[in-house]
Amino acid sequence: MKALVLERVRELSLRDIDLPQELGSKDLRIKIDTVGVCGSDVHYYTHGRIGPFVVNEPMVLGHEASGTVTEVGSAVTNFEVGDRVCVEPGIPDLESRASKLGLYNVDPSVSFWATPPVHGCLTASVVHPAAFTFKLPDNVSFAEGAMVEPFAVGLQAAVKAKIAPGDLGVVIGAGPIGIMVALAALAGGCSRVIVADLVTEKLQQAARYAGVIPVNIREKPLKEAVAEASDDWGADVIFEASGSARAYEGIFDLVRPGGCLVLVGLPVEPVPFDVSSATTKEVRIETVFRYANVFDRALAMIASGKVDLKPLISETFAFDDSIGAFERAAEGRPGDVKLQIKL
Amino acid sequence: MKALVLERVRELSLRDIDLPQELGSKDLRIKIDTVGVCGSDVHYYTHGRIGPFVVNEPMVLGHEASGTVTEVGSAVTNFEVGDRVCVEPGIPDLESRASKLGLYNVDPSVSFWATPPVHGCLTASVVHPAAFTFKLPDNVSFAEGAMVEPFAVGLQAAVKAKIAPGDLGVVIGAGPIGIMVALAALAGGCSRVIVADLVTEKLQQAARYAGVIPVNIREKPLKEAVAEASDDWGADVIFEASGSARAYEGIFDLVRPGGCLVLVGLPVEPVPFDVSSATTKEVRIETVFRYANVFDRALAMIASGKVDLKPLISETFAFDDSIGAFERAAEGRPGDVKLQIKL
Amino acid sequence: MKALVLERVRELSLRDIDLPQELGSKDLRIKIDTVGVCGSDVHYYTHGRIGPFVVNEPMVLGHEASGTVTEVGSAVTNFEVGDRVCVEPGIPDLESRASKLGLYNVDPSVSFWATPPVHGCLTASVVHPAAFTFKLPDNVSFAEGAMVEPFAVGLQAAVKAKIAPGDLGVVIGAGPIGIMVALAALAGGCSRVIVADLVTEKLQQAARYAGVIPVNIREKPLKEAVAEASDDWGADVIFEASGSARAYEGIFDLVRPGGCLVLVGLPVEPVPFDVSSATTKEVRIETVFRYANVFDRALAMIASGKVDLKPLISETFAFDDSIGAFERAAEGRPGDVKLQIKL
Amino acid sequence: MKALVLERVRELSLRDIDLPQELGSKDLRIKIDTVGVCGSDVHYYTHGRIGPFVVNEPMVLGHEASGTVTEVGSAVTNFEVGDRVCVEPGIPDLESRASKLGLYNVDPSVSFWATPPVHGCLTASVVHPAAFTFKLPDNVSFAEGAMVEPFAVGLQAAVKAKIAPGDLGVVIGAGPIGIMVALAALAGGCSRVIVADLVTEKLQQAARYAGVIPVNIREKPLKEAVAEASDDWGADVIFEASGSARAYEGIFDLVRPGGCLVLVGLPVEPVPFDVSSATTKEVRIETVFRYANVFDRALAMIASGKVDLKPLISETFAFDDSIGAFERAAEGRPGDVKLQIKL
Repeated sequence: MKALVLERVRELSLRDIDLPQELGSKDLRIKIDTVGVCGSDVHYYTHGRIGPFVVNEPMVLGHEASGTVTEVGSAVTNFEVGDRVCVEPGIPDLESRASKLGLYNVDPSVSFWATPPVHGCLTASVVHPAAFTFKLPDNVSFAEGAMVEPFAVGLQAAVKAKIAPGDLGVVIGAGPIGIMVALAALAGGCSRVIVADLVTEKLQQAARYAGVIPVNIREKPLKEAVAEASDDWGADVIFEASGSARAYEGIFDLVRPGGCLVLVGLPVEPVPFDVSSATTKEVRIETVFRYANVFDRALAMIASGKVDLKPLISETFAFDDSIGAFERAAEGRPGDVKLQIKL
Repeated sequence: MKALVLERVRELSLRDIDLPQELGSKDLRIKIDTVGVCGSDVHYYTHGRIGPFVVNEPMVLGHEASGTVTEVGSAVTNFEVGDRVCVEPGIPDLESRASKLGLYNVDPSVSFWATPPVHGCLTASVVHPAAFTFKLPDNVSFAEGAMVEPFAVGLQAAVKAKIAPGDLGVVIGAGPIGIMVALAALAGGCSRVIVADLVTEKLQQAARYAGVIPVNIREKPLKEAVAEASDDWGADVIFEASGSARAYEGIFDLVRPGGCLVLVGLPVEPVPFDVSSATTKEVRIETVFRYANVFDRALAMIASGKVDLKPLISETFAFDDSIGAFERAAEGRPGDVKLQIKL
Repeated sequence: MKALVLERVRELSLRDIDLPQELGSKDLRIKIDTVGVCGSDVHYYTHGRIGPFVVNEPMVLGHEASGTVTEVGSAVTNFEVGDRVCVEPGIPDLESRASKLGLYNVDPSVSFWATPPVHGCLTASVVHPAAFTFKLPDNVSFAEGAMVEPFAVGLQAAVKAKIAPGDLGVVIGAGPIGIMVALAALAGGCSRVIVADLVTEKLQQAARYAGVIPVNIREKPLKEAVAEASDDWGADVIFEASGSARAYEGIFDLVRPGGCLVLVGLPVEPVPFDVSSATTKEVRIETVFRYANVFDRALAMIASGKVDLKPLISETFAFDDSIGAFERAAEGRPGDVKLQIKL
Repeated sequence: MKALVLERVRELSLRDIDLPQELGSKDLRIKIDTVGVCGSDVHYYTHGRIGPFVVNEPMVLGHEASGTVTEVGSAVTNFEVGDRVCVEPGIPDLESRASKLGLYNVDPSVSFWATPPVHGCLTASVVHPAAFTFKLPDNVSFAEGAMVEPFAVGLQAAVKAKIAPGDLGVVIGAGPIGIMVALAALAGGCSRVIVADLVTEKLQQAARYAGVIPVNIREKPLKEAVAEASDDWGADVIFEASGSARAYEGIFDLVRPGGCLVLVGLPVEPVPFDVSSATTKEVRIETVFRYANVFDRALAMIASGKVDLKPLISETFAFDDSIGAFERAAEGRPGDVKLQIKL
């Protein structure tokens, strides 16, 4: 089957490759329609690894997918051929201790698309468990369907924050994930969200949305912006989505007494963490690893119009031009939020 | 001081009355601008009592107020003369056990405007603690400021529900409180809210808002509407805002396993409650009594545009015509959501 | 295979019966050692049904079991032959929406031992998923292992209550489940638990335990006992474990402002529920259906000595005398807490 | 009035000093009976400062007090002369935003005994608000009453952890606060608590209590001890009570997926914090600053016998020998948990 294969660092090919195609009784076969290019895909392309995950063998990239059901396993009752779907790309062991607790995303045995050695979905057709496949509502396009996965990360952050209606949020970092977090926080109850970054183009992408207050921290200290917006009380929730160690300097100055810090970005090295400042305000800190039980929520929000992800699709590439899509993504143009590949 | 006085059942007069006017060190004096007419005000007018609270003495009505600060107590540092404000009408004992827990609304010693024997705010000027007074943002009008109190009830319900982003909500009852609950639930993270009632005009008021699915239960069983909207899974949160005992029949058929029922409406008599049905789904049930710590949240949501309460103001009366306002309110026109009195 | 079979109402026989014995790859075969007699087993025996569950075919009774692993499915890695275990008797569909949320006990498709038409465990040997089987620590006997299931109900109630350390609890009803709830609440953080009943012998069983305050409500109003123990503030958590509609009269007088009511007992008919009283105190109400994710917790508490269930085993019968055990259980002797059958 | 005055670093005197003695309407006058010596008192003595709090003027030490009411403010209704009490030493502004939320401990304006420039309680008599004074149950001694304050810190940590019954806890650091945390965690629902330290004598103090598993990390890696106790799953809650930056190395290896880390100890400098490890398990991190709303809980647990703090009182000094008590405390004998001064 033809697929976009990462042969090794910096070398992609669009070629045939053997992929597991056996349909289990609880599985679906899905013809892929659209796949988004994620920062992690690009990072495997440019670096060949993410932390402990190393690309030692050729690996198909891609994990943000929508498509159409073409075959249904014998024990599946709630899907039929022709259903338009999107796919939750992690497959946990549902009998594990974590999964039984509802925390299947942190099951150590989870297998996740395009995380070595597991192949991704940039190919014509995949087999996937029905339990991790979701029907697209009629008014949700394939392009939007392929946005559900990155939005799910934002939604997981919003769920973990336990936003109370009317909260003031702050998102540090206006990259694709930062924007997803901001949108999820607004749709999830925040009255306003300050989005902070150093790059004007990124802030402009965020600023399209009502409720976003963009702050270029080259021009204005974030602490000052938060103080203004909160009458010196501090924000209710801070989302750290930059992954930069520097973001941790003075981060607890931004939060109100009893507020929350949600860690989404992943710094490579340990960061300096000021326990004393966190403690003086009894800040609660939540951490986010992918997502669990939010794909249906994401689809409900897209379908109802609470969240509009379409403006974030910066450009769509043909499957034959997938390598071009990755080259463009690797450039890191500041105005690009999401590049998609249409099969 | 001139005030709208409920002399006894069905007898109102606009007359001078002695009201406490002493300004404590932590108080504000506030010139009243706008007062909303609440169902409880009307109920005291038409019935002379609500449950254990009986009007035995002439009492000034009104508890939904906005106005302007005209004098500031000596120990108050965060207000000044001229500040535009709205008022949280309950004054608890902040040293009580409930208040120290943050639950000041359920402090048994709370004193609340226009709840016998405490006078309300339908008068030229009141004295109120600064701690329960809130500045109006520049883009929030006095009329909107007087809507904060009823919206706060909806917001308290939304807070108690612990809405997760994308939840499907159901509000039973499209009266003024039901609509407030629906708006708070949507702004607080629900993707959609089904609003159920028997009266078409009330549903039309709710249906103005994006995300509301109106259901006339004379025409369609609510259970069916919920099943359709939820793919037979049930709603995440049910808000009972009708106060009708009949709403409790089959109410747990509406909720998903592990979902939540929030009780806002107050039936006069005990209702039949099906423990077995609640238990089979492990439904959590929350109850709402007025509100605590939500006025600032309400104002943030109004100011940011997340909630637009202006369409709910059905008509505004002059202070001199306050009795007319109450007569109109007592008619119970189904298209009326909120009547206000402008001083 | 020989089993205790409920042939029809009031007719038991100890006879051979065909039972499914096929070992799936994720299953264990378990030689049963000890089985406790539960009120629900007895109720099927004496009434032939519980609510919608009707015994239409002969059914093996029993669902509180411990035993020894005798065969291990090919995909099971964490058990071996000879392991001493106890068994969680409900088998959900782990791919269901409820299970993925961690709420597998409220998965509508759960299959549960000795709930018609599913056979129970009062037989020599059973096949059960490894995912719902738990190793007994060395210092936990088979007899205690067979107590884990009923204790798990109490533990689920204690988990749902979200007990804060030092809470004052009240348990209404001193039957076996009421006592389990009281022990779980004490081990789970309550400083004291008032246990209320009409029957002195039952209260004496509860009163063996430190921290239990027995109250015979024939002699003293429960409200008065709670007021004394709480300095008129009310209890933090009320557990309704009697299943009696009369328990609901005045139940909210017992709870503090902002407190919690946990419903464990199952009244046959809807109960009169005073919404107004619940609301005035903003009481949270939780409901309990069996249990999820607590067997490991129960075993940890028994093994560490936090909970001692041995005194609750009133008598142990030989398997050949199982019918005698059920006849004794059907007598309902007030001093009996748990009868067990040793195979 | 005679008091133990810290004149400057390393210089104490027992001498007369002018202290505010005016009794407000909501205050009590309390004759001090027993005062515990806290590590923070000792730190002011030996270093003259803690972080931003610097002793610039002579200051009375002590903030762990019990005593007897000798005069009652005119507005106080729930105390009378002769009541035996203990004292919560922080006085917040109850009208502040934090206090109204129930988070009065993180109110920035709180005034706290023996935190410069506020005098402490090592003197004959103090004036204190009734709202922050608690009656001792008859079976709680003055010595135990003076232990409520340090135990409250442990209890706050246990409350923040949201312990589920049966949790496995780990406490890093067996100093006085670590032991308090361990006892609160056990009484608050943990089945067992591993207590880790480098010093054998400290571990012996902790090991007196049932449920404590002492681990000397010079002899055994903590990770190994946790793996053994948890069957390689990890602990549910880790309490960091050492304040050592080294404790943060590998700390997330100790916790189970979805578990919790509670920060109690205060490192002087920022610590290296491994975001990636925290995130992979979606660890929740809570922080603790003093306590709020737990004194009544602490007293309930002491009175019911759930917690026995008496063995932790290592020695009692006469008031005239207070300087001796501080000298002994400054030695830091590893077998000393709590030194008290009896007036």
